[in-house]
Amino acid sequence: MKLDPETDLTFTRTLAAPRALVWECWTSCEHIPHFFVPKPHRVTACDIDLRVGGRFNTVMEVDGQEMPNEGVYLEVVEGRKLVFTDAYSEGWKPAPDPFMTAILELSDAEGGGTTYTATARHRSAETRKVHEEMGFFDGWGTVATQLDAYASRLAEARA
Amino acid sequence: MKLDPETDLTFTRTLAAPRALVWECWTSCEHIPHFFVPKPHRVTACDIDLRVGGRFNTVMEVDGQEMPNEGVYLEVVEGRKLVFTDAYSEGWKPAPDPFMTAILELSDAEGGGTTYTATARHRSAETRKVHEEMGFFDGWGTVATQLDAYASRLAEARA
Repeated sequence: MKLDPETDLTFTRTLAAPRALVWECWTSCEHIPHFFVPKPHRVTACDIDLRVGGRFNTVMEVDGQEMPNEGVYLEVVEGRKLVFTDAYSEGWKPAPDPFMTAILELSDAEGGGTTYTATARHRSAETRKVHEEMGFFDGWGTVATQLDAYASRLAEARA
Repeated sequence: MKLDPETDLTFTRTLAAPRALVWECWTSCEHIPHFFVPKPHRVTACDIDLRVGGRFNTVMEVDGQEMPNEGVYLEVVEGRKLVFTDAYSEGWKPAPDPFMTAILELSDAEGGGTTYTATARHRSAETRKVHEEMGFFDGWGTVATQLDAYASRLAEARA
C-alpha cells in the first residue's frame, strides 16, 4: 500500500500481545470498551457485524457527551488486516461528510508479539491536519498501549 | 438493503441474457467496452482487479473528451452482487470529491433471463439530483439495453 504523506497518518508499534489476541480484541464488542478510547473517555455502546460492508458502530462518552460513530468494515482479512470507515453506514449508504478510513495491519513480531501498524487515510490534506491536531498520534498511541495492557490481563486470566 | 429516496436512484429491468453471462460482461475488460457507456460514447481503457478493494478504472471518450474514472470494488458476490465506487482508489485512498456508489444486483428471472437492479447511492440529495438530471435513468437504461444486446450476440457466437 502506497501512502500519501499529504493526506495520511500512520505509525507502527510492537505490542507484547500475540497477533490472534490483538485481532480478537479489535473485532469483538466484548473487548472494544476496554481499550478503544483513551481513558477516562468511555465506550458506552458497540455493535459489530464483522464482514465486508457490515456495521462497526460505537458510541463514545467524551467529557459527559455521547458521540455516536457509524461505520462499516471495508476489508476483513482474519488476523492480518482490518479496514473500516465512517464514509459508509450499513448497506453502503454514503455518509455526507466522512472523516477517515482506518487501516490496521498486524504481523508477527520477532519474539512472539505483534507488529501493529495503524493508518488513517483522509480525503484531503486539511482533514489530515485536523486529525493530527486532534491528537492522532497521542490518541491512537494511547489506544495501542491500553490494548496491549488489556490483552496481557486477558491472556493471564485465561492461562 | 433499505434505500433512501432522498439520495438514491434505482431501477429494475428484466434482461433476456442469463445471469452468469451478465456477471461475466460486467466484470471483464474484454466485455466492458461493448456496453458500458451509451453509444456513440466509447470506453478507451479498462483496468479491473476483481476483488474487494481492487481497482475498477475506466477511461471514457465523451464527445472527443477523455474522461478517466478511478474506482474500487466494495463488494463482490460472484454472479449476484457487485458494488463499486469512485469514493476510493486502489489501497483505500479516499477520493476528495466522490460522486456515487453503484450497486448491481442480479437474480434469476422466470423463463431464464436476469432480473437486473441498478442502484446509485449518493452522499447528498443535491448529488442525487445532479445525477438524475445528467440522465441516470436514460443512461443506465441504455447501458442495460446495450448489455442485453451484446450478451445475446455473445451467446450466439459461443453456441
